[in-house]
Amino acid sequence: MEQVNVGIVGLGNVGMGSLTILAENAAGIAAKLGFQLHVKSVCSRSVDTKVLPAALGQVRRTSDWREVVADPEIHIVVELIGGTGVAKELIDAAIAAKKSVVTANKELMALEGAEIWDRAIRSGMNLAMEASVAGGIPIHSVLREGISGDRVVALQGILNGTSNYILTEIERHGTAFADVLAEAQRLGYAEADPSADIDGFDARAKLAILAALAFGVRIVPADIYTEGIRRITPIDFQYAHRLGHTIRLLCSARRSDDGLFLSVRPALIEQSTILASVQGAYNAIWVRGHYGQDTFYYGRGAGPNPTGVAVVSDLMRVAREIRAGSPERVSPFAHERLASNRPLPIDLRKSAYYLRFRVQDKPGIIAALAGILAEKHVSLDAVLQLPSDSKHNLPFVITIEPCLEQAVAEAVAKMAQLEFMVEPPLAIPMERPL
Amino acid sequence: MEQVNVGIVGLGNVGMGSLTILAENAAGIAAKLGFQLHVKSVCSRSVDTKVLPAALGQVRRTSDWREVVADPEIHIVVELIGGTGVAKELIDAAIAAKKSVVTANKELMALEGAEIWDRAIRSGMNLAMEASVAGGIPIHSVLREGISGDRVVALQGILNGTSNYILTEIERHGTAFADVLAEAQRLGYAEADPSADIDGFDARAKLAILAALAFGVRIVPADIYTEGIRRITPIDFQYAHRLGHTIRLLCSARRSDDGLFLSVRPALIEQSTILASVQGAYNAIWVRGHYGQDTFYYGRGAGPNPTGVAVVSDLMRVAREIRAGSPERVSPFAHERLASNRPLPIDLRKSAYYLRFRVQDKPGIIAALAGILAEKHVSLDAVLQLPSDSKHNLPFVITIEPCLEQAVAEAVAKMAQLEFMVEPPLAIPMERPL
Repeated sequence: MEQVNVGIVGLGNVGMGSLTILAENAAGIAAKLGFQLHVKSVCSRSVDTKVLPAALGQVRRTSDWREVVADPEIHIVVELIGGTGVAKELIDAAIAAKKSVVTANKELMALEGAEIWDRAIRSGMNLAMEASVAGGIPIHSVLREGISGDRVVALQGILNGTSNYILTEIERHGTAFADVLAEAQRLGYAEADPSADIDGFDARAKLAILAALAFGVRIVPADIYTEGIRRITPIDFQYAHRLGHTIRLLCSARRSDDGLFLSVRPALIEQSTILASVQGAYNAIWVRGHYGQDTFYYGRGAGPNPTGVAVVSDLMRVAREIRAGSPERVSPFAHERLASNRPLPIDLRKSAYYLRFRVQDKPGIIAALAGILAEKHVSLDAVLQLPSDSKHNLPFVITIEPCLEQAVAEAVAKMAQLEFMVEPPLAIPMERPL
Repeated sequence: MEQVNVGIVGLGNVGMGSLTILAENAAGIAAKLGFQLHVKSVCSRSVDTKVLPAALGQVRRTSDWREVVADPEIHIVVELIGGTGVAKELIDAAIAAKKSVVTANKELMALEGAEIWDRAIRSGMNLAMEASVAGGIPIHSVLREGISGDRVVALQGILNGTSNYILTEIERHGTAFADVLAEAQRLGYAEADPSADIDGFDARAKLAILAALAFGVRIVPADIYTEGIRRITPIDFQYAHRLGHTIRLLCSARRSDDGLFLSVRPALIEQSTILASVQGAYNAIWVRGHYGQDTFYYGRGAGPNPTGVAVVSDLMRVAREIRAGSPERVSPFAHERLASNRPLPIDLRKSAYYLRFRVQDKPGIIAALAGILAEKHVSLDAVLQLPSDSKHNLPFVITIEPCLEQAVAEAVAKMAQLEFMVEPPLAIPMERPL
């Protein structure tokens, strides 16, 4: 085998980024591998309109992915279509045709990764998915190889660049959520339908994959408690700063004796932590290992070239394995057997909380709220009120000491019924650093 | 092969940490591998006095490393002796006896890594050295696998925990260097002979290895420009903070068209950067890739358990390769051919500089210094003087605009001759963030 042949299916941003790197950096890649990584075919529905990198040389263009899968000379199929329809069909067909697969598909890997890995392993094929989480950060490589000897006990991540961009824009400029979102859409940073990003579903799929890699468990994304960032306002950052914190959409996983706590939700995190310094569209992951303790990984969450680096690095690893005749051996989705693959109910989680209210100002408000907290055995920590001239929509904040989420949820539900409440209270956990 | 057998030579801190993880985390390791990693032998000069982890089970103890190398059942020899004498003999013998090797030995890998890799590859054996740089940070894994598709253009690292601890203690408490060093020695954070840490030689060996991994070049450590931290005083942190900077012992590598700039030296870095937030004994590495742009890695630089994680993770990778019959293929020390393996002369490097003086106060000082700068065509940026009542040992600072190191060095040498100078000026580059 003088060279390893690759077929790339899907020529969107990541596909074009990957091709650019494979073409421009071909000499460097071959030097590192000791052999050639050759792009034999590219496939896209609109393949004829694509301008491929000149340095790529002769390459077969097709709009039919079956042709790529059927080519006996192709060793690795790269799936960059996304989604769970054609992409799944393609990956299944490629594995059945005894080809290894590299994919950037977080939805599919989060939903059906375990089955796909099983099939690949049974077929003796290699599978790689570095690009499916935090594009520019080689977190798969870190968790599967770099610190594989450790026992991860917890991780916290900022895994959605769009929502982090929106939050840090609100923080910096004091602009309202809706205005920042509209601007992000105008700039192409947010989709026309922004729900996957701002409601936390994109981050949830990534957390499910990271949990598989870190804890060896298979998690159904829909089982992960998920809350988005739509209710975060500039005033929340003002209060958070006053408390020495900032606000980020935090993906959190923590191992306990009984199982895993998993959540995707806005959280107050201490401003002095490295995680709090993650700005704009960057991603970051903080990992706590039982032996190696804290490590931290930071980089671009998306973008054609950073994600392309992940795809190409995967291709190089898989090509090495193929040359060595070494199949994939153990699925990252099931190397440990926990008591249950269901995350623990979020109600059982303990945390301090930030409660932000908007009320019609009148006497007795604090007394009413404090009464409800006392009734639920929740200890009030502090009451904060920044200057405001709005008597009819007065924001203020109560922080409460660490208590069960369930008690907070019950208190908040009851508070929402109070007649002076302009909108339901906003409850955000104050995360301790790992 | 039901299991892969390991022999560990050297039972100091890292050896004991590695054994602890191998024993306590055996089930997790086997689940991830799909087979057992079995410690068959341990070797130390004082092996009889060692209390091994109970969970380790039956293990052969010996004080003769030749016995480990001669054991036909042992697949992997772990070298944790350190130094370039016996350690080298052991590794050579292990490879000759067709065993793979895991090592934490930075001195040896920096000095003779290229030859050792060549021998391992020619013998079809595997070699791994994650623990040789930044113990708890899987930076080898990241550079060799995770972002291998990228073309690294620069990196900056804080790679010596002891000197970073000393600098951050001076910064926090305003204590003099000698006092912090004495306290660090009392606490066991610094060696009785601290030179390797505080004069930059330890960091230099690590930078030589990282440069090999990042750029594929073989660097002789002694060719790297190296300056230690002995001259840094509390007053330097006061001035640095006034300039929005802090001071760290920075390992720096930058690719230019002509070759590599490499240096280990104190540097002013902007306080707002993530790198500046690295405190105490932590290590960190900032990597700039041509495609993936910025990534950042952070964790403990040393310690039995963090470094043990690196050793055990390497063992797992090598064991996987052995099971798959897959040899090491390409040395990380020579995958690219640069014009020269010699770093570029530091004189050709351009940077802004911080110059700190101690003078006997008298009229005409600034005029004299400014005259020398003008003569060398160096542009003065600012003059700073914090309040001081010492007429005979008055500190103050001049910052200069980006210019060639050579011009600064010449100016500083000339300034040192001025009769009002209490000590030679201290010149520290002000590093731009990557």
